[in-house]
Amino acid sequence: MAEYTFFTNPMSRGQIARWALHEVEAGYDQVIVDFAQKQPAFLAVNPMGKVPTLVHHSTTGDKVVTECAAICVYLGEAHPEAGLGPSADESAAYYRWLFFAAGPVEQAVMVRSMGWQLPVEREGMAGWGNYERTMATLESHFEGNNYVCGNRFTMADVYVGSQVDWGLTFGSIPPNEAFVAYAERLQARDAYKAAKAIDNALIEASRK
Amino acid sequence: MAEYTFFTNPMSRGQIARWALHEVEAGYDQVIVDFAQKQPAFLAVNPMGKVPTLVHHSTTGDKVVTECAAICVYLGEAHPEAGLGPSADESAAYYRWLFFAAGPVEQAVMVRSMGWQLPVEREGMAGWGNYERTMATLESHFEGNNYVCGNRFTMADVYVGSQVDWGLTFGSIPPNEAFVAYAERLQARDAYKAAKAIDNALIEASRK
Repeated sequence: MAEYTFFTNPMSRGQIARWALHEVEAGYDQVIVDFAQKQPAFLAVNPMGKVPTLVHHSTTGDKVVTECAAICVYLGEAHPEAGLGPSADESAAYYRWLFFAAGPVEQAVMVRSMGWQLPVEREGMAGWGNYERTMATLESHFEGNNYVCGNRFTMADVYVGSQVDWGLTFGSIPPNEAFVAYAERLQARDAYKAAKAIDNALIEASRK
Repeated sequence: MAEYTFFTNPMSRGQIARWALHEVEAGYDQVIVDFAQKQPAFLAVNPMGKVPTLVHHSTTGDKVVTECAAICVYLGEAHPEAGLGPSADESAAYYRWLFFAAGPVEQAVMVRSMGWQLPVEREGMAGWGNYERTMATLESHFEGNNYVCGNRFTMADVYVGSQVDWGLTFGSIPPNEAFVAYAERLQARDAYKAAKAIDNALIEASRK
């Protein structure tokens, strides 16, 4: 058995977790989850029934990790040899932007895509405030930094960068120069290309 | 100057960050942000204009941390002497539930409070799926565990626990036995009580 069991579906955010696995060069067995018929073994480890779900068969027992951002952080810690976790000087930016992307960015994009309207007087209670301010805040970071932690790629970029990369593809994030340049830096990575090739091949095969 | 500058408002999620600061016994200077007139010094460190915002005056320079969950993780790492960060065996649960609370729980609660309806066919693309499943998943954890990481309180409980504690108070989380018992365990903590006393006194004073 490989070190990890990876429950995924090629047409899902599981692509983010696969990229993360390749960045740290982790060995994994994949289990493709059929959304129409979820395996009991899968629901047993994640009652939410969401992919990606990662099970780490560690020396001290099985550990279940869900949520794409958590998977990125976990793999960064579990594989220090990859050197993609944050240094003490980087951890403020690392966690700040990971949680900013998982919270405000995700909400701003979702609410906009559903066409829901947040009344102005409720902006103060909503984590994302409004879409424009959320995007401007994220953009201001990448105008001055190549990566989440400045000039060095870390596991935070797998998650934050995927939000930007997917957002540009689906039109949910504005095609501003700083975002486009950031996505291009990520797309050039070997692990990104290797992971996408696997998911794209699975998608292609499922269409035949 | 204290080690941290803490931009907050007593009537905000800043209460979560204050509790976190007290758990690690960090020294801080507070700056109360007036929502109607945000200080330029505050907007300079956080263009989102959101509280809480924490500035760590570290030996290697100022570090800005925003997002309540990120502040909890950051303080846990910056203060290892408090022993409230995760061990290697705890980090799967630590990050999983932190991101679950910051993402799906936050979204499920917000969407429900706004009265927005997510069509069933869109549940697959939404991180929270639906409110009931999100709550059931969170509840299933606390039915078998006293804390996020099992039997030991960690910084993850400051954030996840605040979501539960506030949710019970405001009716956005169902008053199930596992949630109520978890909130009571947290409310009994000295740091929780000390932090809440400060915010409650500030709220009281502002009403005079």
